[in-house]
Amino acid sequence: MANPLDTLLIIDLTHVLAGPFASMTLGDLGARVIKVERPGIGDDTRAFPPFKEGESGYFAAINRGKNSIALDLKAPGDRAIFERLLAQADVVMENYRPGVMETLGYGWDELHERYPRLIYGAVSGFGHSGPEALKPAYDMVVQARGGVMSITGEEGGPPVRVGASIGDIVAGMYLTQGILTALYQRESTGLGCKIDIAMLDAQLAILEHAVAIASVTGAAPGPTGARHPSITPFSTYRAADGFFVIAAGNDALFAKLCDALDLPDLAKDLRFVTNAARCENVALLKRLIESQTLNASRAHWIARLERFGVPTGKVQNVSEALEDPQLLARNMVLPITPRPGGPAFVGAGNPIKMTGLEERVAHPSSPALDQDRATILEWLAAAEKQQTAKSDTLPKK
Amino acid sequence: MANPLDTLLIIDLTHVLAGPFASMTLGDLGARVIKVERPGIGDDTRAFPPFKEGESGYFAAINRGKNSIALDLKAPGDRAIFERLLAQADVVMENYRPGVMETLGYGWDELHERYPRLIYGAVSGFGHSGPEALKPAYDMVVQARGGVMSITGEEGGPPVRVGASIGDIVAGMYLTQGILTALYQRESTGLGCKIDIAMLDAQLAILEHAVAIASVTGAAPGPTGARHPSITPFSTYRAADGFFVIAAGNDALFAKLCDALDLPDLAKDLRFVTNAARCENVALLKRLIESQTLNASRAHWIARLERFGVPTGKVQNVSEALEDPQLLARNMVLPITPRPGGPAFVGAGNPIKMTGLEERVAHPSSPALDQDRATILEWLAAAEKQQTAKSDTLPKK
Repeated sequence: MANPLDTLLIIDLTHVLAGPFASMTLGDLGARVIKVERPGIGDDTRAFPPFKEGESGYFAAINRGKNSIALDLKAPGDRAIFERLLAQADVVMENYRPGVMETLGYGWDELHERYPRLIYGAVSGFGHSGPEALKPAYDMVVQARGGVMSITGEEGGPPVRVGASIGDIVAGMYLTQGILTALYQRESTGLGCKIDIAMLDAQLAILEHAVAIASVTGAAPGPTGARHPSITPFSTYRAADGFFVIAAGNDALFAKLCDALDLPDLAKDLRFVTNAARCENVALLKRLIESQTLNASRAHWIARLERFGVPTGKVQNVSEALEDPQLLARNMVLPITPRPGGPAFVGAGNPIKMTGLEERVAHPSSPALDQDRATILEWLAAAEKQQTAKSDTLPKK
Repeated sequence: MANPLDTLLIIDLTHVLAGPFASMTLGDLGARVIKVERPGIGDDTRAFPPFKEGESGYFAAINRGKNSIALDLKAPGDRAIFERLLAQADVVMENYRPGVMETLGYGWDELHERYPRLIYGAVSGFGHSGPEALKPAYDMVVQARGGVMSITGEEGGPPVRVGASIGDIVAGMYLTQGILTALYQRESTGLGCKIDIAMLDAQLAILEHAVAIASVTGAAPGPTGARHPSITPFSTYRAADGFFVIAAGNDALFAKLCDALDLPDLAKDLRFVTNAARCENVALLKRLIESQTLNASRAHWIARLERFGVPTGKVQNVSEALEDPQLLARNMVLPITPRPGGPAFVGAGNPIKMTGLEERVAHPSSPALDQDRATILEWLAAAEKQQTAKSDTLPKK
């Protein structure tokens, strides 16, 4: 079966997370991704825990299905290979500090001149413009500065980091969007373009509600723990064996919830009769709800609330999520095919389900450092030969 | 200037956040988005706070630049308009519960048969397959069930919701990626496809490190507050006037940090000499660092640490982020053009910076409910007329 990006070649200079997350998605959609790594060391994440038989499970998941070649972009021989790859490529991706590609002689202007159809995707901490373009950034630095930490954590408590590396990941997702847009655009213009994603920009872009509140009211919102800031009851609650969510967004759902909890009088209590009143008495209401929910398991309460039509769900830890029947049914927990003799890992599946895209039941393996050098050089020679042959009969695009 | 998606027409049935966030991005890239709303009420978020002159700042930001038409998809006259729109459209988007479109007579099979080039993008809580496809979901339900809450919060404390609605937003971003992929694919196949995004799937897809840890070690990771779980010092610290981040990821950076803090002996102290030792004594090290940082402002420490080459940055609240010079320089805080007589709002800019895409300095306004009905009908008639004229001379695709 043909996949949407089957004919594409991506040369990927990125390392760690933001860029590799983007090329992972493009690879999941069918693109051939050639990961260009530093000789000897390769991507830093090859040394990131957790390890199994000496190999990183982190690297294995993010770099599934990619090819690897080790190239020293300062050495003439390797530069020649790199340039031959660029001549065949649709996309080149990098996450160096701004200016590094120019120093290497591979800045956008030069690349666009030499390879006009090549799309150039860059992701950096602060972007390729503005007063702080040259500063390095880490996931946590942009989570902190972009504002998401200030609205995450216990009410009245200190700021908390989002447990997933959304500083990197959201930037990677915007880079994917930019590259896909450029591919579509190239179909009509015939020309590549440059995409410049800043991790900090991407953090602000996902704040939605908080930006509206801060800009309209003039007051910055703070963290509200597990509860929704302006709907009650809409939070986590304790059952006998763990946390679960109750999301009763209006008066009718609140009445159903009171029935489900065997607390029918609560729905008529003036302290709880409107959402505004419930928000005012949120702590008291939580105690009353938990006086019931602590007496039985969360499975009991979820089944009961669902029967009464109240939106609910478990708070799962990651091990539980990896066994969630709905996620398993959607192929969202996949084995990563081991390399011969290598360890087996598990990774998240591709959440982009579409007709015309093969639905994987296993991910292809991640590459050992430089493992595909011979294959890549062989393929490159064949592609160049074919192109010479074609150019005898066909005008070049 | 032409924008990448300038020629595209998107018919958008989605409401609240996940779908509208996706069509917002496509609109920012140039697509014409026609928002089809329920007569009388429209998108629920028109009633979401914060308000200014009776209008929602939340709705204004997410629906910038879209057109609005109110259609009752059960009324014959409005269905006829809807079908004429579909005949012109490149993409239709919806976030109903699975099966609703089929009940309306607009399921994928029917649409694909009638409009073979039409791309169909769906986003729902649990996806269009699996045992729980029909259950409703909210952002918080999928944040809870997907695992991100279990790794967010204070160490040893209860799970905490991510302050941004990443349950919706990440799903919307995957929908955008699917639609862009389908547009590219259609250039060669001539056919549309169906994209089926589940909010729950999308949550698992962004957990990266946590999935690797849980699956390799068998133990689910827990929350670690503001600190990195396996690098020290890599956390927030208190200055005299607020929190800032220190991200000293290796021994050399730790030595520089000790110098910057005037605590040079710390770098040789056996309790802190390796990252492993620092992780073991993380609480003590935090007290020692803060014994210095509490004595001056975060501006002082950030300037000093930057001079010593230690990655650092402010923890900003959302109001501070909206005044961040780097974000302002990148056009990431933009006025939303008011409708005549309407209130002015502010929204986050488009983080996808690319050559070939106009860089906005203001967003276009969001629509009043049904405001574009007359214009849309006029345009529709003209488009149909032009098509009939074309079909006299040109074979239909």
